[in-house]
Amino acid sequence: MNSFGHSFRVTVFGESHGPVVGVVLDGVPAGIELCEEDFAEDIARRSPGAEGKADGLGALGMTARKEADKPQILSGVFNGHTTGSPLAIVFENANVRPEDYAQFAATPRPGHADFVAAIKFDGNNDPRGGGHFAGRLTLPLVAAGVVAKKVLDGIKFSSQLVALGGSEDPSKWEELIAQAAKEGDSLGGVVECVIENLPIGVGEPFWDSVESMISHAIFAIPGVRGIEFGDGFKAAAMKGSEHNDPFGPDGRPAKNGAGGINGGLTNGAPVVFRVAFKPTSSVSKPQMTWNFETEAEETLTVSGRHDVCFARRCPVIVESVAALVLADLLQR
Amino acid sequence: MNSFGHSFRVTVFGESHGPVVGVVLDGVPAGIELCEEDFAEDIARRSPGAEGKADGLGALGMTARKEADKPQILSGVFNGHTTGSPLAIVFENANVRPEDYAQFAATPRPGHADFVAAIKFDGNNDPRGGGHFAGRLTLPLVAAGVVAKKVLDGIKFSSQLVALGGSEDPSKWEELIAQAAKEGDSLGGVVECVIENLPIGVGEPFWDSVESMISHAIFAIPGVRGIEFGDGFKAAAMKGSEHNDPFGPDGRPAKNGAGGINGGLTNGAPVVFRVAFKPTSSVSKPQMTWNFETEAEETLTVSGRHDVCFARRCPVIVESVAALVLADLLQR
Amino acid sequence: MNSFGHSFRVTVFGESHGPVVGVVLDGVPAGIELCEEDFAEDIARRSPGAEGKADGLGALGMTARKEADKPQILSGVFNGHTTGSPLAIVFENANVRPEDYAQFAATPRPGHADFVAAIKFDGNNDPRGGGHFAGRLTLPLVAAGVVAKKVLDGIKFSSQLVALGGSEDPSKWEELIAQAAKEGDSLGGVVECVIENLPIGVGEPFWDSVESMISHAIFAIPGVRGIEFGDGFKAAAMKGSEHNDPFGPDGRPAKNGAGGINGGLTNGAPVVFRVAFKPTSSVSKPQMTWNFETEAEETLTVSGRHDVCFARRCPVIVESVAALVLADLLQR
Amino acid sequence: MNSFGHSFRVTVFGESHGPVVGVVLDGVPAGIELCEEDFAEDIARRSPGAEGKADGLGALGMTARKEADKPQILSGVFNGHTTGSPLAIVFENANVRPEDYAQFAATPRPGHADFVAAIKFDGNNDPRGGGHFAGRLTLPLVAAGVVAKKVLDGIKFSSQLVALGGSEDPSKWEELIAQAAKEGDSLGGVVECVIENLPIGVGEPFWDSVESMISHAIFAIPGVRGIEFGDGFKAAAMKGSEHNDPFGPDGRPAKNGAGGINGGLTNGAPVVFRVAFKPTSSVSKPQMTWNFETEAEETLTVSGRHDVCFARRCPVIVESVAALVLADLLQR
Repeated sequence: MNSFGHSFRVTVFGESHGPVVGVVLDGVPAGIELCEEDFAEDIARRSPGAEGKADGLGALGMTARKEADKPQILSGVFNGHTTGSPLAIVFENANVRPEDYAQFAATPRPGHADFVAAIKFDGNNDPRGGGHFAGRLTLPLVAAGVVAKKVLDGIKFSSQLVALGGSEDPSKWEELIAQAAKEGDSLGGVVECVIENLPIGVGEPFWDSVESMISHAIFAIPGVRGIEFGDGFKAAAMKGSEHNDPFGPDGRPAKNGAGGINGGLTNGAPVVFRVAFKPTSSVSKPQMTWNFETEAEETLTVSGRHDVCFARRCPVIVESVAALVLADLLQR
Repeated sequence: MNSFGHSFRVTVFGESHGPVVGVVLDGVPAGIELCEEDFAEDIARRSPGAEGKADGLGALGMTARKEADKPQILSGVFNGHTTGSPLAIVFENANVRPEDYAQFAATPRPGHADFVAAIKFDGNNDPRGGGHFAGRLTLPLVAAGVVAKKVLDGIKFSSQLVALGGSEDPSKWEELIAQAAKEGDSLGGVVECVIENLPIGVGEPFWDSVESMISHAIFAIPGVRGIEFGDGFKAAAMKGSEHNDPFGPDGRPAKNGAGGINGGLTNGAPVVFRVAFKPTSSVSKPQMTWNFETEAEETLTVSGRHDVCFARRCPVIVESVAALVLADLLQR
Repeated sequence: MNSFGHSFRVTVFGESHGPVVGVVLDGVPAGIELCEEDFAEDIARRSPGAEGKADGLGALGMTARKEADKPQILSGVFNGHTTGSPLAIVFENANVRPEDYAQFAATPRPGHADFVAAIKFDGNNDPRGGGHFAGRLTLPLVAAGVVAKKVLDGIKFSSQLVALGGSEDPSKWEELIAQAAKEGDSLGGVVECVIENLPIGVGEPFWDSVESMISHAIFAIPGVRGIEFGDGFKAAAMKGSEHNDPFGPDGRPAKNGAGGINGGLTNGAPVVFRVAFKPTSSVSKPQMTWNFETEAEETLTVSGRHDVCFARRCPVIVESVAALVLADLLQR
Repeated sequence: MNSFGHSFRVTVFGESHGPVVGVVLDGVPAGIELCEEDFAEDIARRSPGAEGKADGLGALGMTARKEADKPQILSGVFNGHTTGSPLAIVFENANVRPEDYAQFAATPRPGHADFVAAIKFDGNNDPRGGGHFAGRLTLPLVAAGVVAKKVLDGIKFSSQLVALGGSEDPSKWEELIAQAAKEGDSLGGVVECVIENLPIGVGEPFWDSVESMISHAIFAIPGVRGIEFGDGFKAAAMKGSEHNDPFGPDGRPAKNGAGGINGGLTNGAPVVFRVAFKPTSSVSKPQMTWNFETEAEETLTVSGRHDVCFARRCPVIVESVAALVLADLLQR
């Protein structure tokens, strides 16, 4: 089912090359100022354009698909304020090239959902650009995140790329991208997100811990391979006396190995987590695939229009998704 | 809220030192053979006893708290078969020592939920042994997993410890545990879980991807710091041409960098994921904490009864939780 | 929250005088033929026009607000078939006259949600024509019902007005409406719905009985005051030997006092229920209200554009809502 | 699924002649005083004994099955207060006579769920006394209602039988019961519930209106045939000018035709609704049924132990269910 959230609920719809992608937000409190301009900054951060890119790499290696990405608010806002009714927002898909995808019905692209979607939906799924599985669906997520961050007034989100192509040194990223582009190949990356000023005790015991809810939503972003909180996988190699966060004055943790969460509840320290993104699946380098019509192996070259490293567009997406989760948890 | 699942729903209740811990399972199909003996094997794998331990370390460094862990089926079974009505199972807590925990009301234990739970519930939470936040709540999870695995007839789960105390070499684990025990310290570990024979297309697009659902449930296990699927965090350092799984004959992936999942749906390869467990929070080594009564820093020694490395008991828990998730996804 | 359903989920959005009203349907199976023409017949039954009215009264006493009510499918359909992804449908609101409603901010209309909505949403709700509380929101419900009935292939829904203005004799209805219109007053009615060919055993024990789910959804239709199944309120005055349905050959009930449902589950007989609709709240006859600005009683005349008896438009709405519920129960 | 509620969630389990019936309550706020004695009064009102009966008829025509109905709190209470963790309560079934029900496997009882449950669960359901479909499951509902009413401090619930055997005159009820008992027959009744002191604006627009939520939960009580709010079915025969509630001073409705609810939200007047209960299905008078083994019609006499009019035990059940719903809506 395409909804997430208990008290602040996000429903996404649309396909990459259909008329629109959109979102319905339910549980938005009444009285929040909201207009279409509010979305511009975060949408720019997600766009393939140079604007809004914090990693210093501009539009390097970004897809040639350009969209206006202008939000249209269809409901839930009156006189410039939210009404408490469901907020529906859509974005037109203007720059569509469905013909790019005709060949993949028979020869699914490695790393994409083409094959599994065709099996699950008996060939009725919209295959154009991944259809409902496309990265374009993260656009309404970012829009939803803008609203969630308004709901979470006073809470500070920051997120950035901390590794690209295996390197944690930003000075090397430009070269890595240029090289991969030249090879017709692609790169992955790691995004870190930090959330400050959360009250103590956010989260629900047992199933709906802060980590559970954030990871659930984060894995909805296409291309995520892992998530870790605080010391993360390194914690498994530490001793308890190293990893534990002693309590300092006022009960605030004196360090933050737990990533701001104990027993699934926020403990007053910043919530810190990292997300691993795989390299872009679409590469122009030839790959082996199976031709389901001829029942033979075949070499596939994915042209289309793609980012060399889509992880570069993901800090704002990760942050948006985290905001959706926290708006939900805080409204319970 | 303490329930998880849409069509196969698990509700847990109980406290570590209260009368029972228990679970209600809803959505169990009618007609499955089930008796109390069916739970014995997995319960032994979770217990602190030597029996059922696959890592060759026996009861080394395990807690002295021993419980019979005998399941009582309260409803949902008639004539040795499930009825289709909710299945309630409880376990008595016999070997309780609530007096071990009296001191932690004022001086919360680093790494535990004592502090955040007291804040969230205004001091009304049951603090004895972590109360509802205790690792003991994983016992009903294992019981639920036994039922889920019966529902998932033909699907094969296996899980094992792949790292302990930072070492992936099992020949070193005994020494690492002995050393940590001697120091009054604790160790973490990594559990890998592999699930075979799943049909293609399990999972839901967008929010309820296989990774989303598994990670949501896995982070409900106390002490998890990270989760990764397939190539996991390593994928972020790979090129697309390396990480992508080419399609081989019959559309089966020719390798398994994606951990058996594309676009959130199973692709026919085994689902593979790894979970990082922190070191046990309770260490007898002195730690700094804050005394909320005297409002002063204080040194705390956690005696009680604890595992040196609780991750050793977690393979069956990880596997059980995965089974719950897949029973739910497959029944949708 | 504005969603309903577990496995076939309906999310409605929009306001009476905003840009659109719409619906997102989640859980629609892939491969169902669907185009915009499929909605025409049921939309006509709901419209205030003469077309599609089964009660022989044509457009008598119907509102002067006319809308094209043309559905736009935004997602979830590809090549004329559903894809298995969320199906979003919107309808433009063209014939809006928000100025009709300016006065009701201070002097709420009796019988409407103006007052309670203003309290609940701190005055941020959209007051124009009832905003999100308007009868216009039943248009996306009818659209959703069209899809649900396609999903429920072979199951037959019929519904009709069985009482109007207190009379069960259709020959008197024309006169009753003419008289009420002349008086500037309004009338209520009762709709009966019959559902045939359901399999035995639909519904869930305990909370999600067929009656529970249908009544939940029916009371979402504005203006419902009661619902009864089978013998309904009359059953409370019968003896067990009269009300019980004896089993006849093949276990089929020999009569249908239970309305096709035992223990919350369908029993093979037609599901039969009746819904009481109040008279239209908007009447041009003067009514007392409270002026919240002057803090004085005041006489109010509701002009606007309204049906004398909106229950006449409700058979298709009742049937649509029942179809949504049954699509959900049958997909579990 | 056997759970109800969004923020105050009730999960019931158990069978009439199994070891226990029970309930898990999730979302109970921490810090509410609660002990086992708190349940005694409402449990007596539901019991078949004379104690606690407000209708003046004592134990007349009540079942001979007597149970201690003593609640055991298994979790969620510590030091006499709720902890914020799930509250589990069970009741033993002591006075079971499963042998009473052996014959109904082949010849299902008219009016009961025997037949539909056997079909739905492929014969695996527990048939003893209706199993999970039995009226005994209303005992944990009443227990849950006691907790809900504590959560709803200051809100006043009252409910009573307003019709029995078709008569609204209590002076005739004793005779009606005596006569029905003599005939081996049974009677139905109508229960009215009034809820005072609710704040304005409780309920959610669209799907989770107060009427939707109450009716959903009320139809979970075995034997309900209809529900109506305020003027109810009579509203369908009234004119708008009669049925509408004019606003009086302070915006309070000057009368209560709407039953305290506009647009699905409470309006400050008491919430008033009536519930129609069918006559007890078990009658000793001979009834026709179908023998599924011999495939022939057969005459059935239901002996067992039954109330002549189980509606007499229902005022407290109706009130409890309403309290569960309102605790949920108020906690959202």
